[in-house]
Amino acid sequence: MNFIRKIVKPHSEEDAQLYNELKKLLNFSPRRINKYKKAFTHRSVQMLDSKGIPINYERLEFLGDSILGSVIASYLYKKVPTGSEGYLTQMRSKIVSREHLNELGKDLDLIRFVKSNIDQANVGDNIHGNIFEALVGAIYLDKNYNTCQKFIYENVIVPYVDIEKLEGKITSYKGLIIEWCQKQKKKYTFDTYEDSGNEAIKHFSVKVSIDGEQIAKGRATSKKKAEEQAAKRVYFAFQKEINLG
Amino acid sequence: MNFIRKIVKPHSEEDAQLYNELKKLLNFSPRRINKYKKAFTHRSVQMLDSKGIPINYERLEFLGDSILGSVIASYLYKKVPTGSEGYLTQMRSKIVSREHLNELGKDLDLIRFVKSNIDQANVGDNIHGNIFEALVGAIYLDKNYNTCQKFIYENVIVPYVDIEKLEGKITSYKGLIIEWCQKQKKKYTFDTYEDSGNEAIKHFSVKVSIDGEQIAKGRATSKKKAEEQAAKRVYFAFQKEINLG
Repeated sequence: MNFIRKIVKPHSEEDAQLYNELKKLLNFSPRRINKYKKAFTHRSVQMLDSKGIPINYERLEFLGDSILGSVIASYLYKKVPTGSEGYLTQMRSKIVSREHLNELGKDLDLIRFVKSNIDQANVGDNIHGNIFEALVGAIYLDKNYNTCQKFIYENVIVPYVDIEKLEGKITSYKGLIIEWCQKQKKKYTFDTYEDSGNEAIKHFSVKVSIDGEQIAKGRATSKKKAEEQAAKRVYFAFQKEINLG
Repeated sequence: MNFIRKIVKPHSEEDAQLYNELKKLLNFSPRRINKYKKAFTHRSVQMLDSKGIPINYERLEFLGDSILGSVIASYLYKKVPTGSEGYLTQMRSKIVSREHLNELGKDLDLIRFVKSNIDQANVGDNIHGNIFEALVGAIYLDKNYNTCQKFIYENVIVPYVDIEKLEGKITSYKGLIIEWCQKQKKKYTFDTYEDSGNEAIKHFSVKVSIDGEQIAKGRATSKKKAEEQAAKRVYFAFQKEINLG
């Protein structure tokens, strides 16, 4: 079937490039490339399929939103066995908040795939979260629920979901680490520098050292995020000692 | 593992009965019977597990609700390729409305499984929908997403989801059939009678004949529902002729 498809409908140069970039992003080989193209098409393009149905990401966004919601629900259910229904609902809202999804979409730099007839500057911030959801919808249609789950684990849960922080117990890892170092009379440095490499979006890197020894690194699209990421890693490295006082 | 569990923790008589009834309801053999017991335990029972965590269906309801939402979303996405995001959202709201889920829970007579310290008359109508959702959550934990999807197809989509009716294009199949018969000068009868058999809940059956020939039957917990079910079957039997006028 795949073989026939290749003969009948050879990949264009553009498709081949999209395929390669998606493969890196998704950690699997996408099969139905048109689903992803749809996930990255803004309504302003005004494309129609052969039946006159608009091709854009809005329907996929609806689908992806609901799959994302159920994956996060099942993660929280298992992760926090003591959490009440109200607690779980609240935690999920935080994780799938518009603000959070926009951040996710930006960090994955999904906008580089988007086709739109509106200037990037004018599409608004929500497009980042919307296409993240649409991408989840496309993965579901291309593969299945389990693949979505894996993608969401790798790209949402592992890098972003931190129950303690979401609960407000820890508002800043950097603050926590500094406070702990001062109390313990340890010397600390946060060495932060721009590190965009060849990437279109600005990136920052940070190295955290305690008493002259480098403990953790972080890298993200803002100084603050990179520092929080590194500080969180320091926190997990010293968790026992920090919690003991 | 299963073998060890059987030795260590033999099924009680009560569990064995629940197992048998669940098997009939679910169309598969449940494995982790405790998940289902939890799905049918009302908070009024005030049970705690060995860690002091309350055992009741509320967390499972949260989980099941979100899985149900995503299964319905993916059904609608595929079923109505012309439907906009707004349309899909609206249709899903109708399908998973509190009212609709309560009806579903009642029709499956899930209340027979429920443990509660409040009189059935006082728990309110929403318990039927809530335990339906909790049951979906239990199925997910016992099996997987695909099994939930199959259960929801068999128990929600096939018997209840009718896009045309949800869209308001058809408000009553009985009305539609009567109107068509009158226009076509056909004789019709709706022969409706109580038919509860050994069941605890009252049931009604109906036979619909057109020009003396029995076309379809229906059976449900209310006269109106049984008639709509039978009329819908007549509609599908004569769909072409009815749509031609």
